[in-house]
Amino acid sequence: MSSRTEISTLGEFGLIKRLTANLKNVNSSTVKAVGDDAAVMNYADKRALATSDMLLEGIHFNLEYVPLKHLGYKAAVVNFSDIYAMNGKPTQLIVSLGISRRFAVEDIDELYSGIRLACEHYGVDLVGGDTCASLTGLAISITCLGEADERDIVYRNGAKENDLICVTGNLGTAYLGLQLLERERRVFEGKDQVQPDFEGKEYLLERQLKPEARRDIIEALRKAGIKPTAMMDISDGLSSELLHICTDSSVGCAIYEDKIPIDYQAAVQAEEMNLNIVTCALNGGEDYELLFTCSLSDYEKLVPIDDVYLIGHITRKEYGCNLIGRNGEELPLKAQGWQAFEG
Amino acid sequence: MSSRTEISTLGEFGLIKRLTANLKNVNSSTVKAVGDDAAVMNYADKRALATSDMLLEGIHFNLEYVPLKHLGYKAAVVNFSDIYAMNGKPTQLIVSLGISRRFAVEDIDELYSGIRLACEHYGVDLVGGDTCASLTGLAISITCLGEADERDIVYRNGAKENDLICVTGNLGTAYLGLQLLERERRVFEGKDQVQPDFEGKEYLLERQLKPEARRDIIEALRKAGIKPTAMMDISDGLSSELLHICTDSSVGCAIYEDKIPIDYQAAVQAEEMNLNIVTCALNGGEDYELLFTCSLSDYEKLVPIDDVYLIGHITRKEYGCNLIGRNGEELPLKAQGWQAFEG
Repeated sequence: MSSRTEISTLGEFGLIKRLTANLKNVNSSTVKAVGDDAAVMNYADKRALATSDMLLEGIHFNLEYVPLKHLGYKAAVVNFSDIYAMNGKPTQLIVSLGISRRFAVEDIDELYSGIRLACEHYGVDLVGGDTCASLTGLAISITCLGEADERDIVYRNGAKENDLICVTGNLGTAYLGLQLLERERRVFEGKDQVQPDFEGKEYLLERQLKPEARRDIIEALRKAGIKPTAMMDISDGLSSELLHICTDSSVGCAIYEDKIPIDYQAAVQAEEMNLNIVTCALNGGEDYELLFTCSLSDYEKLVPIDDVYLIGHITRKEYGCNLIGRNGEELPLKAQGWQAFEG
Repeated sequence: MSSRTEISTLGEFGLIKRLTANLKNVNSSTVKAVGDDAAVMNYADKRALATSDMLLEGIHFNLEYVPLKHLGYKAAVVNFSDIYAMNGKPTQLIVSLGISRRFAVEDIDELYSGIRLACEHYGVDLVGGDTCASLTGLAISITCLGEADERDIVYRNGAKENDLICVTGNLGTAYLGLQLLERERRVFEGKDQVQPDFEGKEYLLERQLKPEARRDIIEALRKAGIKPTAMMDISDGLSSELLHICTDSSVGCAIYEDKIPIDYQAAVQAEEMNLNIVTCALNGGEDYELLFTCSLSDYEKLVPIDDVYLIGHITRKEYGCNLIGRNGEELPLKAQGWQAFEG
């Protein structure tokens, strides 16, 4: 470790000045970024989009194994993912931080370097925020603004009977990455006898620590002339998100177990940990892949697009929401993604 | 106390559904509020404004003496204040909450009732947010969006030599309200011998617990045809904010001690507590009054406006930023508002 500068030596304004130095805005909608009571944007004839996420230490991340730079990158990217899931383009980011005394200026520099890297990579302007003291650990709240043409926006409620259900990438991998990291932590604390072995498992860790938002898919769909009828990003697990779409659209669905895209390393890891890989894919969460439905008539245009997988179709509401197993058995889908409040 | 419902019985989605039930949108710019990956707004030919504030338990509020409903109201209003300080109109609110197990559904209902009351009162739509578990106490992060015509927006950097410096309401009162509440807490803990006596001090407490944003002043200025040259809301204390305006505008200033508006009750309270009331007014913070500069030629239009006080004028940069005491002595202004990171 290099030097440690106490945040008190800079004060709030000094810290903000340091963190936001040399910011360059790339979006024409950004009129005035940091440095006033509020940021100013000009969305002209576009619609503005806004989404917010709060990440708290000990709940959403564990700094024992999450590097601060990765955390910053991920905190930004998960918000971009929400904007892409509306078929929009993320354009501005507002970052609020609660920082306990445990953290030095250099730590916050690290966190911000990740946030700024994500902004650079996705073409998003950092336009504001709030920095304050915290009694207990790190609190990150990020709001992302974006823009879209009105005709392009995709909501959750537009899925129609016979629409195709598609997902991108693979599912369950981020969850297995988390299990691996948790196992390492237990080993480190001497609570577990199994030696952690990350050899050949880098991809699982990357999916957990440094997820990417699927801008590429949004661009590919646009290029192909496909507008999804409904779309969400998969943050809480496929089951939970698909149930949201079906409820909001007043439809049912059938998805096929053997069509759910699974990464080979993830399957091996699940086996090793005695976990059911399909359960991981359905309920694991944090994959930040896209789940969307589109018209059957888009099928031909859809097939050539890389990394998009057809997993089922939308049905009438009366059918319910079901997973069709490998032997043809029907299992009702359940939302098990988010249980942090449970006892 | 009535019944206590554990948050786990509702889960995240159930809680969000409960908190956002029966929301009615009043702004035409709100296209789609809660219930999708992001909120959707149409600012048409207006500019969009965005500001964010994080409030953490133990740092920004103490639930021993702050009722949850008041806290919700204040958390929303301080964000509205930032939008008014741009000469804009707050239109949308996004609320993220981190909630520890100590809180029941009824507590969060209380908090939200305050947020919703503030939204109703100021005509702002609640359009989104995030609700998550927290290990330690309550974390509130609020983002407020607003709108303004481009020609109306007032930044910090427009103050010119000879401009008038004005503040609204009175200053230092919220700080003295906080001192009173802190004293009561110490009494309650048996650490202080003085009995708390709130008789006749309700206004001080109200200024601390339930501040209002100065929408009335923004409307009065507009009606009078005055556009301030620079403006901020006073959250960190008059000194700190005025230094921001002077730095950003490359000017100096002279303000007069005997012109700073002081509430009578606040003066009495300061006396009783052996505090200098002018110091409280300069550095106390949390008054959420407006500080603005305007052209000397607006003087005649300014005088009839209720609750606006002329406290000095803008000078050349070389003069510095000074307080002129009652005997004509010059004292350089210092920013002492925010020292939460200090040891």
